[in-house]
Amino acid sequence: MKQDISGQLVAALFLLLATFCAAAAEPDPLPSWQEGGTKSSIIAFVERVTQQGSADYVAATERIATFDNDGNLWAEQPMYFQLFFAIDRVRALAPQYPEWETREPFASLLKGDVTAALAGGMPAINELIMSTHAGMTTDEFAVLVHDWIESARHPETGRLFTDMVYQPMLELLAYLRANDFKTFIVSGGGIEFMRPWTEAVYGIPPEQVVGSSVVTKFDMRDGKPVLLRLPEIRFIDDKEGKPVGINSHIGRRPIFASGNSDGDLQMLQYTAAGQGPSFMLYLHHTDAEREWAYDRESHVGRLDKGLDEARTRGWTVIDMQRDWKTVFPVPRD
Amino acid sequence: MKQDISGQLVAALFLLLATFCAAAAEPDPLPSWQEGGTKSSIIAFVERVTQQGSADYVAATERIATFDNDGNLWAEQPMYFQLFFAIDRVRALAPQYPEWETREPFASLLKGDVTAALAGGMPAINELIMSTHAGMTTDEFAVLVHDWIESARHPETGRLFTDMVYQPMLELLAYLRANDFKTFIVSGGGIEFMRPWTEAVYGIPPEQVVGSSVVTKFDMRDGKPVLLRLPEIRFIDDKEGKPVGINSHIGRRPIFASGNSDGDLQMLQYTAAGQGPSFMLYLHHTDAEREWAYDRESHVGRLDKGLDEARTRGWTVIDMQRDWKTVFPVPRD
Repeated sequence: MKQDISGQLVAALFLLLATFCAAAAEPDPLPSWQEGGTKSSIIAFVERVTQQGSADYVAATERIATFDNDGNLWAEQPMYFQLFFAIDRVRALAPQYPEWETREPFASLLKGDVTAALAGGMPAINELIMSTHAGMTTDEFAVLVHDWIESARHPETGRLFTDMVYQPMLELLAYLRANDFKTFIVSGGGIEFMRPWTEAVYGIPPEQVVGSSVVTKFDMRDGKPVLLRLPEIRFIDDKEGKPVGINSHIGRRPIFASGNSDGDLQMLQYTAAGQGPSFMLYLHHTDAEREWAYDRESHVGRLDKGLDEARTRGWTVIDMQRDWKTVFPVPRD
Repeated sequence: MKQDISGQLVAALFLLLATFCAAAAEPDPLPSWQEGGTKSSIIAFVERVTQQGSADYVAATERIATFDNDGNLWAEQPMYFQLFFAIDRVRALAPQYPEWETREPFASLLKGDVTAALAGGMPAINELIMSTHAGMTTDEFAVLVHDWIESARHPETGRLFTDMVYQPMLELLAYLRANDFKTFIVSGGGIEFMRPWTEAVYGIPPEQVVGSSVVTKFDMRDGKPVLLRLPEIRFIDDKEGKPVGINSHIGRRPIFASGNSDGDLQMLQYTAAGQGPSFMLYLHHTDAEREWAYDRESHVGRLDKGLDEARTRGWTVIDMQRDWKTVFPVPRD
């Protein structure tokens, strides 16, 4: 009798251990996501396309996932972070350009009035970008970006910009890669502004970054070949440009696309039009407390047509406030 | 005594087995390459950059290898294979364009006189390409290429074009990948002409193919998004264009670059100018018997300045006749 009980105890212990091991072997891949519809539908899709023998199985080589960056992998308020870089560059370069003291948008900027500087709209922004993002080699530009991203801080949160990435999206990227997806950034931001840090921050290598670009020109400097960045737009990777950029860089249609604004709508439409299963994901900024709340009326990251189309077509929409347990990761410092 | 001998026998057998296993575990990665300088220098470089702790160690993520395609991974005589595709398309499309019967370069082509058709030089070739490579969606074009590459045959050898790839280069690609290199094609050929078959033939996926391109435009057809190929050159991935294309698509400098013509020179110079170790490889077509022999005077794949620079700078030059045991793989049919 005694032996029987001890036998049962051992069996129970084994069962407990087995359960524990099973749980340990499969930890929650998306711990910062609230349980519920959004998280469940992401996991259901990934399981559907990765289960061999299933009608919706997609070969690993075809598991292409594309992510917008601004407002989707990291924040974008009160303005695109790349603009902070441009502004810091204007300040650093100002001593070399005394004429900026009286010329807009530089004059306002140097007086600290960013709003007035950007009042000129796209032409003003274009001038800021061209005067700070061109006129050097690609290698020199990469160093400028690298140094800036390591030290610059967001004016409202005081955080490093790379600490204003979304923890749930980092988990989603890792979860997709663990399921043999190849993850790409497809952003309206500058391709060479992103590449110096995307591998360290998102695990996405330079060759998987698609973005807007200036014209570059091969040249010889002291017998060494360099690529010069010219003040001329080559490609705008936004709206209709996103499927064009995807086709140019990737050459396959994504089966998973994630964005947060009307600028991502064509990428999601293009993804939805694939022949096999596909997953379209919009991030809706609904969290004024932990982040920012904005959509149809926002000047940055407007989500209007996209929100309507997502609802009509049944695409998955993340409600940041409801679906995310945490927004930002624990800061590095 | 007897036991001693049997002990020695067992030891000898173990030694034999160990030797056999070691040999079996490390088969020759480049069996179609003759032993000697070229093969040895390739292997020495790969061992040098992959050996952890060595001064020349390169992290796996930085092991970028770029290969020209025409005349480097597959043959290119008597003319670029993509031109055979264009010619076959002209024939297929001719009934829709009765005016081609009297208009060059189409008229000569339709009479079977390719030489006369191409006598118009680049403008004639450009017209042939634009009239056959544009005016359809990217998906439609991929199907045309796919169907052609599965059936068209080289006029001199009667082989499928994909059976005119170089066996030693297939081995080199696989050897590099086995050592955690990421292999890319960087070709003057059309990016969308290559992508439909490079994964099956070379093990290089679409997103690792860089090439020349036409402008594509996002459009809606019956509510479905498509990309239209327009008859307008977007980018020529040749000569100075190769480093530009590499930077645009890959965003890192290769440490290994392989080409066969002056069109690859800037890619090799760009690779050589990297900060760490680098390997520059030229394929010299010296084998009139098994393939073709051509270099400084050839209209296709001219290797003149590149050959001089390779010799001056000590880059590795493959002598096809001397260095390769076999040229083409055993045909599939």
